[in-house]
Amino acid sequence: MLKTGILNPHVLSLLARVRHTNTLVLADRGFPSWPGLETVDLSLVDGVPTVLQVLAAIRAQHVVTQAFMAEEFGRENDAATRRAFAAALRGVALTHEPHVDFKKRVPAAVGLIRTGDTVQYANMIVVSG
Amino acid sequence: MLKTGILNPHVLSLLARVRHTNTLVLADRGFPSWPGLETVDLSLVDGVPTVLQVLAAIRAQHVVTQAFMAEEFGRENDAATRRAFAAALRGVALTHEPHVDFKKRVPAAVGLIRTGDTVQYANMIVVSG
Amino acid sequence: MLKTGILNPHVLSLLARVRHTNTLVLADRGFPSWPGLETVDLSLVDGVPTVLQVLAAIRAQHVVTQAFMAEEFGRENDAATRRAFAAALRGVALTHEPHVDFKKRVPAAVGLIRTGDTVQYANMIVVSG
Amino acid sequence: MLKTGILNPHVLSLLARVRHTNTLVLADRGFPSWPGLETVDLSLVDGVPTVLQVLAAIRAQHVVTQAFMAEEFGRENDAATRRAFAAALRGVALTHEPHVDFKKRVPAAVGLIRTGDTVQYANMIVVSG
Amino acid sequence: MLKTGILNPHVLSLLARVRHTNTLVLADRGFPSWPGLETVDLSLVDGVPTVLQVLAAIRAQHVVTQAFMAEEFGRENDAATRRAFAAALRGVALTHEPHVDFKKRVPAAVGLIRTGDTVQYANMIVVSG
Amino acid sequence: MLKTGILNPHVLSLLARVRHTNTLVLADRGFPSWPGLETVDLSLVDGVPTVLQVLAAIRAQHVVTQAFMAEEFGRENDAATRRAFAAALRGVALTHEPHVDFKKRVPAAVGLIRTGDTVQYANMIVVSG
Amino acid sequence: MLKTGILNPHVLSLLARVRHTNTLVLADRGFPSWPGLETVDLSLVDGVPTVLQVLAAIRAQHVVTQAFMAEEFGRENDAATRRAFAAALRGVALTHEPHVDFKKRVPAAVGLIRTGDTVQYANMIVVSG
Amino acid sequence: MLKTGILNPHVLSLLARVRHTNTLVLADRGFPSWPGLETVDLSLVDGVPTVLQVLAAIRAQHVVTQAFMAEEFGRENDAATRRAFAAALRGVALTHEPHVDFKKRVPAAVGLIRTGDTVQYANMIVVSG
Amino acid sequence: MLKTGILNPHVLSLLARVRHTNTLVLADRGFPSWPGLETVDLSLVDGVPTVLQVLAAIRAQHVVTQAFMAEEFGRENDAATRRAFAAALRGVALTHEPHVDFKKRVPAAVGLIRTGDTVQYANMIVVSG
Amino acid sequence: MLKTGILNPHVLSLLARVRHTNTLVLADRGFPSWPGLETVDLSLVDGVPTVLQVLAAIRAQHVVTQAFMAEEFGRENDAATRRAFAAALRGVALTHEPHVDFKKRVPAAVGLIRTGDTVQYANMIVVSG
Repeated sequence: MLKTGILNPHVLSLLARVRHTNTLVLADRGFPSWPGLETVDLSLVDGVPTVLQVLAAIRAQHVVTQAFMAEEFGRENDAATRRAFAAALRGVALTHEPHVDFKKRVPAAVGLIRTGDTVQYANMIVVSG
Repeated sequence: MLKTGILNPHVLSLLARVRHTNTLVLADRGFPSWPGLETVDLSLVDGVPTVLQVLAAIRAQHVVTQAFMAEEFGRENDAATRRAFAAALRGVALTHEPHVDFKKRVPAAVGLIRTGDTVQYANMIVVSG
Repeated sequence: MLKTGILNPHVLSLLARVRHTNTLVLADRGFPSWPGLETVDLSLVDGVPTVLQVLAAIRAQHVVTQAFMAEEFGRENDAATRRAFAAALRGVALTHEPHVDFKKRVPAAVGLIRTGDTVQYANMIVVSG
Repeated sequence: MLKTGILNPHVLSLLARVRHTNTLVLADRGFPSWPGLETVDLSLVDGVPTVLQVLAAIRAQHVVTQAFMAEEFGRENDAATRRAFAAALRGVALTHEPHVDFKKRVPAAVGLIRTGDTVQYANMIVVSG
Repeated sequence: MLKTGILNPHVLSLLARVRHTNTLVLADRGFPSWPGLETVDLSLVDGVPTVLQVLAAIRAQHVVTQAFMAEEFGRENDAATRRAFAAALRGVALTHEPHVDFKKRVPAAVGLIRTGDTVQYANMIVVSG
Repeated sequence: MLKTGILNPHVLSLLARVRHTNTLVLADRGFPSWPGLETVDLSLVDGVPTVLQVLAAIRAQHVVTQAFMAEEFGRENDAATRRAFAAALRGVALTHEPHVDFKKRVPAAVGLIRTGDTVQYANMIVVSG
Repeated sequence: MLKTGILNPHVLSLLARVRHTNTLVLADRGFPSWPGLETVDLSLVDGVPTVLQVLAAIRAQHVVTQAFMAEEFGRENDAATRRAFAAALRGVALTHEPHVDFKKRVPAAVGLIRTGDTVQYANMIVVSG
Repeated sequence: MLKTGILNPHVLSLLARVRHTNTLVLADRGFPSWPGLETVDLSLVDGVPTVLQVLAAIRAQHVVTQAFMAEEFGRENDAATRRAFAAALRGVALTHEPHVDFKKRVPAAVGLIRTGDTVQYANMIVVSG
Repeated sequence: MLKTGILNPHVLSLLARVRHTNTLVLADRGFPSWPGLETVDLSLVDGVPTVLQVLAAIRAQHVVTQAFMAEEFGRENDAATRRAFAAALRGVALTHEPHVDFKKRVPAAVGLIRTGDTVQYANMIVVSG
Repeated sequence: MLKTGILNPHVLSLLARVRHTNTLVLADRGFPSWPGLETVDLSLVDGVPTVLQVLAAIRAQHVVTQAFMAEEFGRENDAATRRAFAAALRGVALTHEPHVDFKKRVPAAVGLIRTGDTVQYANMIVVSG
């Protein structure tokens, strides 16, 4: 039995296949589904789990050097939410870009982890170091 | 897009196949895996999500009339934990039995939802009304 | 057991994957089949079930903000039928377009639910809010 | 395009494999699911479609000589419901038996068609002539 | 058990998916195989069954409004054969075209039924009404 | 392209796997289907093809030393039919047995070829030499 | 049990799908593998079996009207080998072309049969009559 | 590219899974097929390849310590054939037993390699050292 | 990209499914293969990798409380080897039993990791805490 | 049981499909994963196994005539590492090219073997002779 860290067999397998320059999508509750892209859906109900819970779990065991988010995230959320995301991404080179451009990166990802996050534009694409 | 309630496609499909007299296992972090039993693993890390979060999500949309738990649950947990489970199961006929007997019910279930719950013996088998 | 609403495991799973900007096709009895597109065929015989029964079931649990229909629908049906569809789509931004253009939208959908509907051009593409 | 009768590809395929002495289960909304048994789920919402709609569609194209129902059906339903089922089964040798015995016949069936029927104990096992 | 008509589960399923504007290929003994196209091979030996047997079975239950054949059919066969095909296609709008053009229509079909027919250029593409 | 004989890829593959002491079922229109048994369904409509057409095709290329039929075959058919089957099985050691016993041999077969034969009890189990 | 000829179920099935204008690749020991092309690998060790053994087996039961080989075959082999191939292809229209052009025909084939042949450039693409 | 030895990917994979006490069946042309047992069919036509060719290829790279054959092999074959098999099995502990007992060992094997061998009772079960 | 620890996606997925009371087999170079048991084969050549390398990798991240080995291990190996295994299993309750009994535990395991270990009887069944 | 050499069934199968002009990728710990490319992941932890261990195992049994590596390999590693790779590739025509060009060759490979190698830019594409 695992002592600590990520417990999910599919998440562990997917993350082990995200390597140098590979990307991974962390999706909120409403992010479009992408048939054909390997998807682990962890969502239960609204807010369970959140994108930041998944991000924290990943950063504890994996190198993340870069991330992309929609620039709409900044406009649609309050300061507390923005601060929480900034703290969670400390040390990661973060690029904001229009949501339509952000979505163009999705098909090139190795996979997608879906959450129940209700924060507007909480979606994030992380790049393996 | 779903307005409310359970968001997960696999969980929704599995629950729709739990009908009169069918059973479903809600498993904690360490419950043995059962190859051959349809399994939705929602676990991320310790405590995400909990068995009670899954139970609440199910009871909001499904009829649950009966439940089974290990009698070890009562001995191994404090009063607060026991009260939380009792509250979550209000209105459900609950049977406590030795863990070895509880496990014999698993192969007859329609499926199993795994959580990251760290409460001792938090596992539960729920019976559809 | 589900208390209410949509009962079908495959329909529930498909709908949970129709999210922001994703589309879903509701097809009548004679609409062409699309090999490669995820399809739930609910048809039994003529008129069982109808597109409007499926639409009502979806709108009770899902956000639908936009819809597309063939403009031939208006020409080929009587006033009662047109009124029934208009009522069922109240609050949804509806676009009529030539049937040949309508069909070009199909391959981009997440899936298709087929009915036994015999109303001419009853097909509809709904967009998740 | 089919001129008339059953429209559903999976239902047509399943029925063509129900031959001399083979049996088929018609299940209501709440009948237990049977993993491993070929299942066509036509249910949409409560009452769509009904067991009698499926039975009528089958009898129009297939020979049905025998049927089984739970004896609880008679006790739990009113005269109108009982008359409707009797009419739908005219010419078929019908056996009532306890529901627990009825369920023992299910694993030997070639398949199961699930409906959204809400009539109590509406389930039926039909035998091909 | 089916009372009458087409008996084959796969043929029934395939035909139920040939709808408005969809096409179906009826192939003779020597017509090229098309990997990737859904194929039901009914052939046993030379002449069992024939394309016209399959066509008659389809027309009894399905609407066929249009058909394509190779123009080589007319040149390579005697008057009796040509009359038999003409009779079998009565009421269907028939187009003859060079075999090389005919073959370009194949990949767009919903499926192909192969026979053991030994008539030269007996192949036919039928269009659902 | 095959010069002569059996044309069907699946039939050819199945027959090549029927070897010393292996058995093969030739089934008529109404013989029960056997989920789990490899099945080639050649049936189109009533009488297309017949069991004797399949048997002749097999005997031309394969050694058949033994066969089983239901003893009901003799009682239910006229002299002409009985003579046709006797001729087709010349040189094969034929055993008649009650249909209920005949059916017990089916699960041990390597496969089943289904026809559209309407002759009563036309079913046959052939044994490879 | 087969009386004579090709014994292999997969080879028989593949050959039955090589029809008018379809092509088949016969490959030697070292010919590149083609992921995605249906392949029957009959090779055991060097020289078991040979391309000419496979060709002879095919020609006994199938019409072969045309063949392609690499023109390097003539340069790299002695007169005895060249005579053996010429004899085996008597009556077939044979085209020699550069190996790089020969390989461009491979993806359009219905399948590939691999041998253990050690003759240089023994590969052959045969066309069904 | 392999320098020498067995060339066949499936044979190599199967042999690598035959380890201490595991068994492998080498089957002649007419040995019954065993649905469910992993099978590599190398047969082309009568005598291509032989059981002894496969055995030699295996012994060059694998440890074989024990073998089983039908005692009918000795009675049905001439001295030359018996000598050839004896030579090929030198150093292996060989057990002859009735063919009916021999066949009971088959289901426990890891796999079966089929040849085109026409020697009577040439079948052999080899045990990995 | 993973910072440290086990790198293999399949091994990570398998280990995450080994929970309370579940067992896992670590197999040496020659241990019998078990069709039907989930297997990760990490072996390259003799001694790459070893059972103790896999055990160390597992113990760094997983709770192992109990282990089984063949009692033949002690007899067949020298003191250095025995000391290395003892050190690697420090803190784990180790049971030695006859190899024939040890092998009876294998089918109940969740999976098997195969190594290239050449130490006699290096096989081990570990039990999750 | 294999006497010597590569022990892994999947590696043996993959290598047997790398033939004239086919290529194979040997990947280090961090090389990007390529969904869709056949992959054997042998990695356990850092440095187990290494690219040179895999290369040595391959060269013992296979012809390798050409190899490609990233030119960054030379700049990022010390003399000892460079000498070890040079020795392991003796007799192979080695091309260094920018890593971005190197990666363009990957999709054309027959497969990829992943190691746990931690040497910078240890990745290698080998070409079969």
